[in-house]
Amino acid sequence: MEKITPSWSLVELAELLGGAVADQPEFRVKRPVPANSNDPEGIAFCESDKYLRTAESSGVGALILPPTMTSASKPTIHHSHPRLAFGMLLAMAKRPMPISPGIHPTAVIHSDATIAPTASIGAYAVVEPGASIGDGAKIYPFCYVGDGCSVGTGSTLFPHVVLYQDVAIGDGCVIHSGAVLGADGFGFMWDGSKQHKIPQVGRVELAKDVEVGANTAIDRATAGSTKIGHGTKLDNLIQIGHNVEIGRDSVIAACAAVGGSASIGDRVSMGGSCAVVDHGIIGDDVMVGGASSVSSDLPGGQAYFGSPAIPARQGLRAYKAIGKLPDLMSRLRSLEKRVKELEEGKS
Amino acid sequence: MEKITPSWSLVELAELLGGAVADQPEFRVKRPVPANSNDPEGIAFCESDKYLRTAESSGVGALILPPTMTSASKPTIHHSHPRLAFGMLLAMAKRPMPISPGIHPTAVIHSDATIAPTASIGAYAVVEPGASIGDGAKIYPFCYVGDGCSVGTGSTLFPHVVLYQDVAIGDGCVIHSGAVLGADGFGFMWDGSKQHKIPQVGRVELAKDVEVGANTAIDRATAGSTKIGHGTKLDNLIQIGHNVEIGRDSVIAACAAVGGSASIGDRVSMGGSCAVVDHGIIGDDVMVGGASSVSSDLPGGQAYFGSPAIPARQGLRAYKAIGKLPDLMSRLRSLEKRVKELEEGKS
Amino acid sequence: MEKITPSWSLVELAELLGGAVADQPEFRVKRPVPANSNDPEGIAFCESDKYLRTAESSGVGALILPPTMTSASKPTIHHSHPRLAFGMLLAMAKRPMPISPGIHPTAVIHSDATIAPTASIGAYAVVEPGASIGDGAKIYPFCYVGDGCSVGTGSTLFPHVVLYQDVAIGDGCVIHSGAVLGADGFGFMWDGSKQHKIPQVGRVELAKDVEVGANTAIDRATAGSTKIGHGTKLDNLIQIGHNVEIGRDSVIAACAAVGGSASIGDRVSMGGSCAVVDHGIIGDDVMVGGASSVSSDLPGGQAYFGSPAIPARQGLRAYKAIGKLPDLMSRLRSLEKRVKELEEGKS
Repeated sequence: MEKITPSWSLVELAELLGGAVADQPEFRVKRPVPANSNDPEGIAFCESDKYLRTAESSGVGALILPPTMTSASKPTIHHSHPRLAFGMLLAMAKRPMPISPGIHPTAVIHSDATIAPTASIGAYAVVEPGASIGDGAKIYPFCYVGDGCSVGTGSTLFPHVVLYQDVAIGDGCVIHSGAVLGADGFGFMWDGSKQHKIPQVGRVELAKDVEVGANTAIDRATAGSTKIGHGTKLDNLIQIGHNVEIGRDSVIAACAAVGGSASIGDRVSMGGSCAVVDHGIIGDDVMVGGASSVSSDLPGGQAYFGSPAIPARQGLRAYKAIGKLPDLMSRLRSLEKRVKELEEGKS
Repeated sequence: MEKITPSWSLVELAELLGGAVADQPEFRVKRPVPANSNDPEGIAFCESDKYLRTAESSGVGALILPPTMTSASKPTIHHSHPRLAFGMLLAMAKRPMPISPGIHPTAVIHSDATIAPTASIGAYAVVEPGASIGDGAKIYPFCYVGDGCSVGTGSTLFPHVVLYQDVAIGDGCVIHSGAVLGADGFGFMWDGSKQHKIPQVGRVELAKDVEVGANTAIDRATAGSTKIGHGTKLDNLIQIGHNVEIGRDSVIAACAAVGGSASIGDRVSMGGSCAVVDHGIIGDDVMVGGASSVSSDLPGGQAYFGSPAIPARQGLRAYKAIGKLPDLMSRLRSLEKRVKELEEGKS
Repeated sequence: MEKITPSWSLVELAELLGGAVADQPEFRVKRPVPANSNDPEGIAFCESDKYLRTAESSGVGALILPPTMTSASKPTIHHSHPRLAFGMLLAMAKRPMPISPGIHPTAVIHSDATIAPTASIGAYAVVEPGASIGDGAKIYPFCYVGDGCSVGTGSTLFPHVVLYQDVAIGDGCVIHSGAVLGADGFGFMWDGSKQHKIPQVGRVELAKDVEVGANTAIDRATAGSTKIGHGTKLDNLIQIGHNVEIGRDSVIAACAAVGGSASIGDRVSMGGSCAVVDHGIIGDDVMVGGASSVSSDLPGGQAYFGSPAIPARQGLRAYKAIGKLPDLMSRLRSLEKRVKELEEGKS
């Protein structure tokens, strides 16, 4: 692994990040790490005394500190914005997963598929007829790109992504392993003796810069399209039902279940493990707290919390109060007794 | 994509669906779409004025309307049952994902596996010893069919399905991508110093016409079988624990977690994101509302809701009342004060 | 399938398990089954009259009973500890999924990967540069082992496991199908007009004897490592966010969502469908009831329940009381009226 790991001296790093070495300019680090790391080849950042104390007592190799802070024990780079410098370092430390340009000899590409010359198709990928893969796109091993699909310029499908037919992925999208896009929406009709499957013949459309997490499922529409808007980010293990529409720049954390035909606006953020009822409507700029269950429409511009989700200011107090219910009930019983005594005393 | 997309003139379509063209018989449509679609090649249906207004102001190409309704702007087919006609159109618009008859040269089929002559085995599928694949079954690319498994007549395994060993799939089943059937049940025994794995040597059995959604997991039984009954439909991202038994024609929406040895009856419907406790028993014809958590047995023939799930009529009111808890508590405090004053005034 | 199924006469089995045949020593059984099984080739165990009655009326072939119990109808082995004997039988009935020693000719192994001579690599596995696979490890078909990954001695990756780069799997681990380890942590920064991706350059580290369920996702750390401790067992469809640390011998049931940077101690047990908030801290020896949502730190050594999770003794009563809220509210209204009448009567 060594040969594929980067390594910087502090003086090199200070120059790259726009900081100044405080000491030990030749000290070498290999990767950004958290302040509590015991990695002697790692470099962390601190912006508070609390984190500095954590770092001093950890085995971390070196630190990025604001000019006002000094480490008693660790080689240091001073930087006016340590957090920003650390973010730059994260970007520098990123190395792409290996994939060769062109089409791997084991990939099975249908003769009616269109692969841009600068796209990369990994081992054992399958691309079906009518599919098109854009410039610079990376299709990692074991991906299945169904007939009539399109993958936009510069998009990445990590290993083991499945696109059923007619799934359109915009430019600059990232689809993580195990994600399944375009499986049938869940539609059945009970006729009194049997569940009849409602054919699911629609599509899935992802706009630009969408990210889809590992093992997330986005169902095709019954008819029309299930749509994920520009810049929206979905975490792992999320269910997006058929005909759902999600707007721009929304961020949905892991394990959400979004019911069929639900509509979620722009810049919505949802915590982990949320549920949204079928046909539910969530307005723009809504925040939904983690583990909430949205069972009715949520007007835009507000925060919500709870199962069922209600405005967050009310919800956070209300759900915490559940623990007091047994006490509340015994106080109510006691009051009822006392009022009865008063009533009897009065009569 | 064009060449694999169907296309009909309205007069052709009217004949196929059993309706009558109101106008523009040569207008061509390619696919069924929702009434709010902007697809000029799409045809939608409306049965109410509200939907007709939506359709008139959308870019949809044509409409299916009851004889009593008229569109001001769109080419129209009149049909006595627009919804039914639309359902027929969905079925007509469905095209199977491509797979060639026979065994793809890259598939790895063990010599002790039995493949029916009319089955299709896609690229890079693996079929282990003792497995049998029935007539007309379709095994899409990257499926793994373990040793001793059977896949019934006409069943479909979409790309990337995993069957561990001894999984029996009945006739006419549909298993979506990423589903894993037959992984070990989750059984460990703590001896005070270590978790010991309890060997999981049972099976999974799916009866006929079962559908299993994308990325759903159905664990093998510790001993015996985990069983999914005839006609039951499971959505995406569902967990079915070891030794669970589910009856006939039940429908479970996405992200449910059904604990080990739970038993679910016939014609049960569960909304999304439900949880069922280990060994829980749910009777026939039960409906469980979305995001409910079943922590005790639920007698048949009723609807339930909530976490914990209680009869729905009570549950829907009760869970909505949580938001009023802070108010309720302050009213209780105020009452306590007033009663105390009354008591003091009385003494 | 027959030829790969074991089969024992009762006299053979009694000798292997350390029991005594009560009758029919030549009766043959093929597998352990539950007491309610109708499998005439199966053998079940009973330790109570209730289970014996179940077994007598089922079609199960034979029974393991304590010396004090007698079956009226089934061939029997007497054993001082029927449950223990059954556990031994489960272990005897376990057969490994087939995989040949060495590297399957279709596997794509990079020349810079290191495969121990006793490891098995199945069909269509991909192992990237810098990866190392330990002695006796089994890598089943369609697994993707990313660059810089290591898989320890005797570990198993079932079909369709994905390890992104820099994932370290300890010795004796079991990773079930569809699990994705090392996908990007979910980190984005909103700058007022766009979600910027925070590069995720850390690792995933599993200690020894960890088990990871089907379709579970464990994200790589932003920087540093996401860590799962020695002997910890994760069920199916679990989300482990970036930089999470879980201690030793913990057991987490299916469909849990553990938020980024959460810390879970040693010997923690969590029921199914739990959620843990980002940065949440759960102490050692905590038990969390199923379908709970942990929204604040939980001190060690206690049981918790509910959404939000509170100490279980309080929580179990409190959450059950939610159903009484409508009644409670009407009693409160009635009390308010009565107190008002008392106040008016008094004035």
